[in-house]
Amino acid sequence: MTHIIEKVRNGVDTEQMFGTLDAINADPSLGAFQFRVSNEWVDGAHNRSTMQRFYGAGHEDDSRTEPFTIEAGEPAVLLGHDTGANPAEALLHALAACLTTTLVYVAAARGVRLTSVESTLEGDMDVRGCLGLSDDYRNGFDRIRVSFRIEGDAPPEKLRQIVARAQARSAVYDMVTHGVPTEVEVTTG
Amino acid sequence: MTHIIEKVRNGVDTEQMFGTLDAINADPSLGAFQFRVSNEWVDGAHNRSTMQRFYGAGHEDDSRTEPFTIEAGEPAVLLGHDTGANPAEALLHALAACLTTTLVYVAAARGVRLTSVESTLEGDMDVRGCLGLSDDYRNGFDRIRVSFRIEGDAPPEKLRQIVARAQARSAVYDMVTHGVPTEVEVTTG
Repeated sequence: MTHIIEKVRNGVDTEQMFGTLDAINADPSLGAFQFRVSNEWVDGAHNRSTMQRFYGAGHEDDSRTEPFTIEAGEPAVLLGHDTGANPAEALLHALAACLTTTLVYVAAARGVRLTSVESTLEGDMDVRGCLGLSDDYRNGFDRIRVSFRIEGDAPPEKLRQIVARAQARSAVYDMVTHGVPTEVEVTTG
Repeated sequence: MTHIIEKVRNGVDTEQMFGTLDAINADPSLGAFQFRVSNEWVDGAHNRSTMQRFYGAGHEDDSRTEPFTIEAGEPAVLLGHDTGANPAEALLHALAACLTTTLVYVAAARGVRLTSVESTLEGDMDVRGCLGLSDDYRNGFDRIRVSFRIEGDAPPEKLRQIVARAQARSAVYDMVTHGVPTEVEVTTG
């Protein structure tokens, strides 16, 4: 009898995944990562970020041969020219992407084959805060609502547990819900 | 004598800016905004967000004729195929973009002409947190460092005050440093 082992599930190489977990357990220094972004102002609300190198798994990672680029902008009503998603939308993207990737990895680890994952996110803000018109409103979103629609070869309860585990382990969900100590330094030219 | 009024500064229409502030002061209901993102899983760590419509200034805004798209991915060492910046990098982009746009608007309002704004951001995390290997580490960044280099026709102290004001009013800086109440609902197919 031949036992067929499914190595790639949901597009995730589970053998590599468990190998990575074993390697970090064996040498915890491999767990230290640093991600970086460079941003350049273009004009008005238009600016552009690039991401390429990072540190992780014990070395400076230069495997990306080209940088990624994300453009930022604002719509006309917020004084921009729609040169890209605005920063608040970019934050919602970061949240959606991290929850999605995390749940896809969790499902792969748990042997669940997913067929579809979609999400919609909404963030409410009163711009009287960030425009400096009223101290009664915070600058950012008052709240964020995330709605997932997930399909796969597992009962609904198991699919819900996978999303719950993703909430418990997502890096960006942690940051967006709990905040991060942030320091800003300025050099003037 | 002719008095020349500079209407556009740093790419920002200051007349429109002060008009917007006056309009919201006169009718505070115009300050309510809702931003939205839809995300779709592609495969593995690859997923894609789109942003188009939003609510703001008293109506559903459909002025964007095409959606913006941001792709997410992970590098090989994190089990992906580099299909886009990863979610943690996307969060740093959101932060960089919002601080930059906010300071450009503040400078425009204060009559300061900027010639260059660049920033680099670093976020440190130990992935033993988000990988579920250790409860001693949070899932997200322990801390974020933002370094701005800003040039313009104002003394260094005034340029620093502009960055400080941006920190005090940036929507994403507020969210990333303080967190946002977030609810997640799940529908299974």
